[in-house]
Amino acid sequence: MVHKCRQEPSLVDHEMSVLTGSEPRRGGASFPRVSTFKVHQERIEIATRGRGLTDVSRKVQEIVEASGIATGVCTVFIQHTSASLVIQENAAPSVRRDMETWIERIAPEDPNAYEHDDEGPDDMPGHLRATITKTSEVVPVTKGRLALGTWQAIYLWEHRRTPHTRTLIVHVQGV
Amino acid sequence: MVHKCRQEPSLVDHEMSVLTGSEPRRGGASFPRVSTFKVHQERIEIATRGRGLTDVSRKVQEIVEASGIATGVCTVFIQHTSASLVIQENAAPSVRRDMETWIERIAPEDPNAYEHDDEGPDDMPGHLRATITKTSEVVPVTKGRLALGTWQAIYLWEHRRTPHTRTLIVHVQGV
Amino acid sequence: MVHKCRQEPSLVDHEMSVLTGSEPRRGGASFPRVSTFKVHQERIEIATRGRGLTDVSRKVQEIVEASGIATGVCTVFIQHTSASLVIQENAAPSVRRDMETWIERIAPEDPNAYEHDDEGPDDMPGHLRATITKTSEVVPVTKGRLALGTWQAIYLWEHRRTPHTRTLIVHVQGV
Repeated sequence: MVHKCRQEPSLVDHEMSVLTGSEPRRGGASFPRVSTFKVHQERIEIATRGRGLTDVSRKVQEIVEASGIATGVCTVFIQHTSASLVIQENAAPSVRRDMETWIERIAPEDPNAYEHDDEGPDDMPGHLRATITKTSEVVPVTKGRLALGTWQAIYLWEHRRTPHTRTLIVHVQGV
Repeated sequence: MVHKCRQEPSLVDHEMSVLTGSEPRRGGASFPRVSTFKVHQERIEIATRGRGLTDVSRKVQEIVEASGIATGVCTVFIQHTSASLVIQENAAPSVRRDMETWIERIAPEDPNAYEHDDEGPDDMPGHLRATITKTSEVVPVTKGRLALGTWQAIYLWEHRRTPHTRTLIVHVQGV
Repeated sequence: MVHKCRQEPSLVDHEMSVLTGSEPRRGGASFPRVSTFKVHQERIEIATRGRGLTDVSRKVQEIVEASGIATGVCTVFIQHTSASLVIQENAAPSVRRDMETWIERIAPEDPNAYEHDDEGPDDMPGHLRATITKTSEVVPVTKGRLALGTWQAIYLWEHRRTPHTRTLIVHVQGV
């Protein structure tokens, strides 16, 4: 479902190597302990084909790796209101098909249901579908990797019928 | 929809200016590099008029500016279970009206639908509406500003019929 | 609803005690100002009895206390796609019963409704229920405690019929 995915240059990359005092060692010797607190933020663009779920886990993991952060949190934020984020099953494609079918039932595309239709009949249900899913997902980072469960992937959920370019901000903070 | 909005004094404001070593410069000179890691937390109260969406983006942006943080993450947290947060379209008011109409259909105020009615018939649907929207929204900070998309605003969604005073905790962390 | 809850050893616990310069005092004296930035991450396992809400607030609060962090943010992340997180009312049990009844209506267990049924008829509705609730909850930390409102608790929401062991990552970051 990802057709092209252009990764822009890192927006910000801060490191603070901090001399945190000395650690006592057996025998009376000591050596300085250094921790590095890091802040890393990138913006990426994802081209969607129209309605559907696009797995962005690998792209986000690449940013986590670029950050050099071993332990921290990764925030993925989508700058749109008719596309959203969700963490769901990465294995059976039937799960994603059922998600689409179900959300069409809950927040249907129905020309008579909504007042707002300036941008077409698929726009307002897109806002509703984004409302009950996520604008940001926050995932811990453990040993340099997103701490996703075995069956989890981070999806960008396009709710509009036509292809769109969607912007995500990925922010990683930790040590 | 915001009638009054009292901002309490900053609860906490930490700065750590850290000498992170020296940066080599052409010609052999070097100068010290200093990064400042900051933690800033405020509590604000928002008075609502009863059911509806209140745009709190400007208040949150003011707190981000007060923090002095250029790159980081801002967490907005609501301390209630019958009011919630959502990031949605900031332009057409018809979007907000459709959101209200739709959520009334999905989690209706119906005296026969729920066991829990101690606090009135609008309370339990309020809990359900909060359940499928957000208790916290996490927004990256870029160049000292919330990295919201052009059409995004952060809304406090009051689900009770009567006016309430709602407390938000805004926490900003970064450099 | 919690039957056993095994807490594993802390995965990571970083401290950076930072000499942040000296603070001027009246009379011309000064003393060094030290801030400590901390990162603390633990993994916990929660045994569920099958469908229902398990209050995990106390376990998460214990981890916040173990971190020694006074001001920061706590991220709770669930590594599953048919169980989820939600912050809701901690008082009336009728609220939780109404939540279960309502979500069964919105995303019903119905053998004819879904294509995906490899893992039984309760699996796909579980994915849908997780989709509209949360995979992570982010709660500010204030004065060493989760900044939950008076009536708020953090719940693990098991959506499968049978008992499961669910893994949460709790990450606390701050000063």
